[in-house]
Amino acid sequence: MTTPWRERPVGIVGLGLIGGSLGLDLLGQGVEVRALVHRASTAERARERKLASRIEQDPSVLAECGLIVLALPLDRLLNPDPELLAALPRQAVITDVGSVKQPIATLWQQKHPRFVASHPMAGTAEAGVEAGLTGLFAGRPWVATPTEQTDPEALASVQGLAESLGSQWLTCPAAAHDRAVALISHMPVLVSAALLQAAEQGGEAASAAALVRQLASSGFADTSRIGGGNPELGTLMARCNRSAVLEALNHYRQQLGALEALVESEEWDALQGALSHCQALRPEFL
Amino acid sequence: MTTPWRERPVGIVGLGLIGGSLGLDLLGQGVEVRALVHRASTAERARERKLASRIEQDPSVLAECGLIVLALPLDRLLNPDPELLAALPRQAVITDVGSVKQPIATLWQQKHPRFVASHPMAGTAEAGVEAGLTGLFAGRPWVATPTEQTDPEALASVQGLAESLGSQWLTCPAAAHDRAVALISHMPVLVSAALLQAAEQGGEAASAAALVRQLASSGFADTSRIGGGNPELGTLMARCNRSAVLEALNHYRQQLGALEALVESEEWDALQGALSHCQALRPEFL
Repeated sequence: MTTPWRERPVGIVGLGLIGGSLGLDLLGQGVEVRALVHRASTAERARERKLASRIEQDPSVLAECGLIVLALPLDRLLNPDPELLAALPRQAVITDVGSVKQPIATLWQQKHPRFVASHPMAGTAEAGVEAGLTGLFAGRPWVATPTEQTDPEALASVQGLAESLGSQWLTCPAAAHDRAVALISHMPVLVSAALLQAAEQGGEAASAAALVRQLASSGFADTSRIGGGNPELGTLMARCNRSAVLEALNHYRQQLGALEALVESEEWDALQGALSHCQALRPEFL
Repeated sequence: MTTPWRERPVGIVGLGLIGGSLGLDLLGQGVEVRALVHRASTAERARERKLASRIEQDPSVLAECGLIVLALPLDRLLNPDPELLAALPRQAVITDVGSVKQPIATLWQQKHPRFVASHPMAGTAEAGVEAGLTGLFAGRPWVATPTEQTDPEALASVQGLAESLGSQWLTCPAAAHDRAVALISHMPVLVSAALLQAAEQGGEAASAAALVRQLASSGFADTSRIGGGNPELGTLMARCNRSAVLEALNHYRQQLGALEALVESEEWDALQGALSHCQALRPEFL
């Protein structure tokens, strides 16, 4: 029988939105949390905020951890620091929080025998050491993408962690995950960003640059929100999930083109039918 | 000197979201409100909700009104009931609330000498006799699109009405209004609807129909909100503002194509630059 994940310290690498929120919730459960951060200023502020039991810049802080969460941005997950790799105990369970799973799973399964690729689907618009908050994961999906190589006990530990935080645990193949998040998260960033650019360009072309800004209402605010979000994150999603994002854009272009053709040909009953379908469809995604 | 608009009863034609909200706010100001509705069931419920001082199905209810607001859907504004037209006093100021102004202004200037085309830009997702609420117009733009033919005193009356409700009054040419709302309201409905369709189609193509629904989060909910809204309204906007919507879609397609090309060619710095521009741009629209 395995030692339950909470009987040894849990390690967190990175104390941004996800890492900081994990630390707060785990401390609240009485779990000992040991965190590794990159910068001295982050360590200092994270100690003030009490995001973990111990917070260090030296990877040796992870030595006694039984489960370690790599709460790092996609680019740092895909180009891991050799010192970090060397410091990860071979017996520890390692998981990540990246929003793209295929490249991470491929890389990390070669780097560590007990790696479990996972993705807690929770977030806010904030980032950095100030962003962590309690209860971020409650009721949100936490997706793992195990393969035949994945250690079942390691997978069970990550499931235990996710469920202790109130997440809904699910597993699927990494390729299915990456296509799904391209469709409902990564591609929509570009769709939303293009809307902001079109309003700017179209407003200028119509000599109505001020007017479009004055008249934009809550509908425009909602539709443009993710397009006006963190540019580093949007770029990393597109870069690390490029083929699925291009595939999703291809689906999107076809659908928008079909709606445009209905407007062009004045097929109003068909347009209303399509919009009625969308109205019925949306609750399935909420 | 003209009689201020509030010294005579104000007429409202239609007691849906806009008409009902107008009635509630005007009654709250102590103004007498006389409303014309189409159906007996609407009249009954509107009386229960006290949306106006008098509520009738007979157009003669408007006889003594000095200012009449046509709070009707676009299609009924563009195909006005002959009985309604005959019942509008020639001395009354008439305005509308339609979200497309060129066709309405063209038609109604021929129908009535004191018509003022206007558009209070306020709304919720609700419609019908239950939807009206107090304070809907406070802080929201109320746009009028006067022409050389517009009676300046009539325009001043509508401005007085709008400002009494707390709206921000502005005027612009009807063509500029229609292009602006195409860019920030009508075209985005199609952009958002296509996203729902792409998530559905792409999910099926990837054998991940259930997964896309499980993993969709608040970002997808926001971006898809207006696409999953009232299909009649979305269709009417596209139908009544067709050329401006097609022009806006053309701008949109170019912008999305440019972002897609950056992903295709892996120009990540340029993509991040574009998304940074969007991040800086969005607050100008809020």
